[in-house]
Amino acid sequence: MQVLKTIEELQNIRKEIKGTVGFVPTMGALHNGHISLIKKAREENEIVVVSIFVNPTQFLPGEDLDKYPRKDEADKKICQMCKVDYVFMPEISTMYSKEEVLVKAPNKSYVLEGKTRPGHFDGVLQVVLKLFNLVQPTNAYFGKKDAQQLSLIQQMVENFFLPINIIPCDIVRESDGLAMSSRNVYLDEQQRKDALLISKSLYFAASLIGKNELKSDVIKNKMLETMNILDVEYVAIVDRQFNEINEVVKGNTIILVVAKLGNTRLLDNIWI
Amino acid sequence: MQVLKTIEELQNIRKEIKGTVGFVPTMGALHNGHISLIKKAREENEIVVVSIFVNPTQFLPGEDLDKYPRKDEADKKICQMCKVDYVFMPEISTMYSKEEVLVKAPNKSYVLEGKTRPGHFDGVLQVVLKLFNLVQPTNAYFGKKDAQQLSLIQQMVENFFLPINIIPCDIVRESDGLAMSSRNVYLDEQQRKDALLISKSLYFAASLIGKNELKSDVIKNKMLETMNILDVEYVAIVDRQFNEINEVVKGNTIILVVAKLGNTRLLDNIWI
Repeated sequence: MQVLKTIEELQNIRKEIKGTVGFVPTMGALHNGHISLIKKAREENEIVVVSIFVNPTQFLPGEDLDKYPRKDEADKKICQMCKVDYVFMPEISTMYSKEEVLVKAPNKSYVLEGKTRPGHFDGVLQVVLKLFNLVQPTNAYFGKKDAQQLSLIQQMVENFFLPINIIPCDIVRESDGLAMSSRNVYLDEQQRKDALLISKSLYFAASLIGKNELKSDVIKNKMLETMNILDVEYVAIVDRQFNEINEVVKGNTIILVVAKLGNTRLLDNIWI
Repeated sequence: MQVLKTIEELQNIRKEIKGTVGFVPTMGALHNGHISLIKKAREENEIVVVSIFVNPTQFLPGEDLDKYPRKDEADKKICQMCKVDYVFMPEISTMYSKEEVLVKAPNKSYVLEGKTRPGHFDGVLQVVLKLFNLVQPTNAYFGKKDAQQLSLIQQMVENFFLPINIIPCDIVRESDGLAMSSRNVYLDEQQRKDALLISKSLYFAASLIGKNELKSDVIKNKMLETMNILDVEYVAIVDRQFNEINEVVKGNTIILVVAKLGNTRLLDNIWI
């Protein structure tokens, strides 16, 4: 495994690669969620590239950029164990210059995460576009946990005609159901217990839908009841294009929850 | 020569090309300026692709989108004569969908053309990025006439790490000095004569600089005097990054003129 720091190293190596390239962009602090993406990339491609870059432009002022968990050495070991070929770990000054041409998510993205974190997706798309152009992957792997991000990346690939397959990957959970997240390390014991209500509310929604309760309002209210001790930011029921829908359509619905446990914002969702 | 209309045709053909690709993006109504770009591309690459697409997103409301000259048949003949391999002529609906991820030129671009035509460069960069991703050229050819556009495209290529060489090409002029432009066809006989003052003022500036007059204010005022019968929108003296400068630096200066002849806006410039 080679660790690359500069654009030149990466570009020179990329030029020589002839086969399929699987790419997993991350912000590091790798957990089983990331590992599942990397394993899938390893299975499906000749070469696997993982990027580890805590991207400043997707954090808003006052967000947790400075205290975002960084575990470079552990991350490298994980990549090595997963038989990654190249880890790209650039500095901020390598990725960004002073005044840049920007990417702007469409106006319709200013709902849900885009509403709470205006500008967040612009930063996500900007760094993903840069990384895509550097790595030129055949296949790029993203978790369904960041569902709105995944949807916007798929849209960017379509709109910009990028010759890349986006591979959505299932959410990986702790044995008790909590969705894996780099931010889970912030939770204290009580918060860790309370956080379980998030995934439970989603399973509960799925069971309601199984019993043919399809009305979004009814489902949302019942979910909120199960999470009444939590600081729930939103429960949303949307189609795959992130339009809110009044009635669940099986095969084209995502139910999303965001809740704050202390200062930690946790996201989870289920694809129906 | 093959004329391609759809994304699929272009992408399928691109996949099979192994050698160097030279790309000349145009809005059609090809003149000797474009032809010089195509010839250079022909000399320097194994495969030459020309796109002809009047890009709506770079026209502001009230601008000349609807009456922009369209000469598809003549353009195809010119491309054939220049031994172009592929002409890409998509419909608007092929290039754009309803609500898109956008490209945004940096704030510093909102001077000169960016000030008069706010949003114009966003549209230029958006379509050029799309075309770059489709054509995946080795080398892309742009005229120095649209100097600010050229500078922003170079910046986009750097910022987004696009693996493409941007080749700036000299302005091609009529025998009397008027810079070639698709918009020259709008000029009546008197306007055509008056328009000559634009290039004359630029040559005059160059001669002043040759005599070591380097102060921007002095040069600009003397240029404006030579164009006193014209409706001059701006004369600007900038460095290669389009920062206005008080003093000419040989090798790093562009002098720009924009003037309106009737309803026709003409651009010209000289690189010092």
